Amino acid sequence: MATHTQILFVNRPKPGKLDPSFVFKSVSKPRPKASDLKDGEILVKNLYLSFDAAMRAWMGELKTYRDPLQIGQVMEGRSASIVLASKHSAHKPGDRIVGSFDWQQYTIVQPDNPKYGLESVPDGVSLKDVQYVAGMTALTAYFGLIDVGGASKGKVVVVSGAAGATGSMVGQIAKCLGCRVIGIAGGPDKCKMLVDQLGFDAAIDYKVDRREFTKRVNEVIGRRGYDVYFDNTGGMILEVLMNRMALRGRIVVCGSISAYEGTQDPRFALATGNLIPTRGRIEGFLVTDYIDRFPQALTHIVSWYKDGKIKPLQTTVPG
Amino acid sequence: MATHTQILFVNRPKPGKLDPSFVFKSVSKPRPKASDLKDGEILVKNLYLSFDAAMRAWMGELKTYRDPLQIGQVMEGRSASIVLASKHSAHKPGDRIVGSFDWQQYTIVQPDNPKYGLESVPDGVSLKDVQYVAGMTALTAYFGLIDVGGASKGKVVVVSGAAGATGSMVGQIAKCLGCRVIGIAGGPDKCKMLVDQLGFDAAIDYKVDRREFTKRVNEVIGRRGYDVYFDNTGGMILEVLMNRMALRGRIVVCGSISAYEGTQDPRFALATGNLIPTRGRIEGFLVTDYIDRFPQALTHIVSWYKDGKIKPLQTTVPG
Repeated sequence: MATHTQILFVNRPKPGKLDPSFVFKSVSKPRPKASDLKDGEILVKNLYLSFDAAMRAWMGELKTYRDPLQIGQVMEGRSASIVLASKHSAHKPGDRIVGSFDWQQYTIVQPDNPKYGLESVPDGVSLKDVQYVAGMTALTAYFGLIDVGGASKGKVVVVSGAAGATGSMVGQIAKCLGCRVIGIAGGPDKCKMLVDQLGFDAAIDYKVDRREFTKRVNEVIGRRGYDVYFDNTGGMILEVLMNRMALRGRIVVCGSISAYEGTQDPRFALATGNLIPTRGRIEGFLVTDYIDRFPQALTHIVSWYKDGKIKPLQTTVPG
Repeated sequence: MATHTQILFVNRPKPGKLDPSFVFKSVSKPRPKASDLKDGEILVKNLYLSFDAAMRAWMGELKTYRDPLQIGQVMEGRSASIVLASKHSAHKPGDRIVGSFDWQQYTIVQPDNPKYGLESVPDGVSLKDVQYVAGMTALTAYFGLIDVGGASKGKVVVVSGAAGATGSMVGQIAKCLGCRVIGIAGGPDKCKMLVDQLGFDAAIDYKVDRREFTKRVNEVIGRRGYDVYFDNTGGMILEVLMNRMALRGRIVVCGSISAYEGTQDPRFALATGNLIPTRGRIEGFLVTDYIDRFPQALTHIVSWYKDGKIKPLQTTVPG
């Protein structure tokens, strides 16, 4: 009997760096076949699974913006896939789609069930690039930066987690809008990549001592301060950035990577006092609130990608 | 020669409770006379000086929303005063006015100089009540609560420093709007006063241990959370309140009383993560941005006061 591989979520990670061999287990299961399909179903082959920082939060015991993963389930995640067989009138073999098909090689999907969030791959976008260019991280970057942050031409935008999927898209969209863009990332290699490959105006390495980091932030951002800080990390970086806000600056709270591993002291000096003279704003958001405008946003992003203004940034791990 | 009393600002306060005998000095000076007036000037007698929590911040070395006070100057502050003599066509003896006339018994004022921020006392408002009812704290409460906080009928409003000039006005205006109002104040007497005299729906004493305070906050605010938290204090109270925000809740940053004395650990666990599912917002503001709408706001507040819906809350210290 033909088999395929599933990755199960078998243990909640301990604080600190995630140990994949503890958290996940690879199992071999009977492979779904075209002959298993009921009416209204399709069989997909999953070619590119996405692995996102937010998953670290799903793995905890607490409800975040979604319920926690359950022990023993197939690891959830979105995939760029191809339709192999179809008993659904709107899908035919060879169609290129993206959806929540989980970490397994093949999935039988009910396209009409909204839990799969099934989408077509836009023309001109490769299956390999589609999750970076047209996935939730790209949409998160777009609406957080523009709608929550109010970014527009000439503004100064700072983004942390800048070498990640969301952060690198934030910086690239901000460049497309005509902003000055400063990325914060860990280590000189990532910082060099942001400037040399993605066209950021500057990058700041946060993996230095705090005094050095603060000095660099002040130098690079300058006295006027930033208009938008897109915060993917929280923690020390947020604390330092709180004090460099320009008049009517905005901090967009997108994630708290620094808290996901549960090892950092979550306390810091919240300088809310600085929000008074600046009339500053800190605001959280969920991209799902903008679902009606996803098609419009994707039109913009895909157009920038086709023009070569947005470069896919990804690490592909075969197997 | 006739004299009058001036209060000089002679030393910046040390961290901790302010010692008036160290910070201020009372001096006797020649009293300004009607015969000293030049054209365009008026002589006022200052009857009610205001003493505000924000002054604690003015006394520090650092620029806040204004420059620091200078050592040796007459202490700045607003006063409800009466015109004694006038060489200005728009003012006549007996006029009741409010302005930045400083801590002294008599002041010669140039009404056309905007630094005095001279205003008439609205009809039907006593000279004793005018600074509470129609002063900057009332305007701060009004615009912070309504414009920044978005308070309206049926919303749940929490305010800290609730027994202070700004906080008590926030709560009373919120009641006039039809909100459910919860005040946070120090000690059972203040809490009782908020409910019994000012009509707050509930009050929470923060001068208890943190666990007890958190428990009370959760009980009183309830599972749904608050829509608006008007923050006058920062610190521990803000930290606890961060976790009780309703969907699309807003925190209005008005002041940081907890930081003024410089003795509390300013670090706390900033749960920015909670801003994501709630789409919450933290925002600072300065009332001076709303100057064009001051007359409109005062019409509302004075009307509520005349109807007995807003009661003056003040401690008058003679002498």
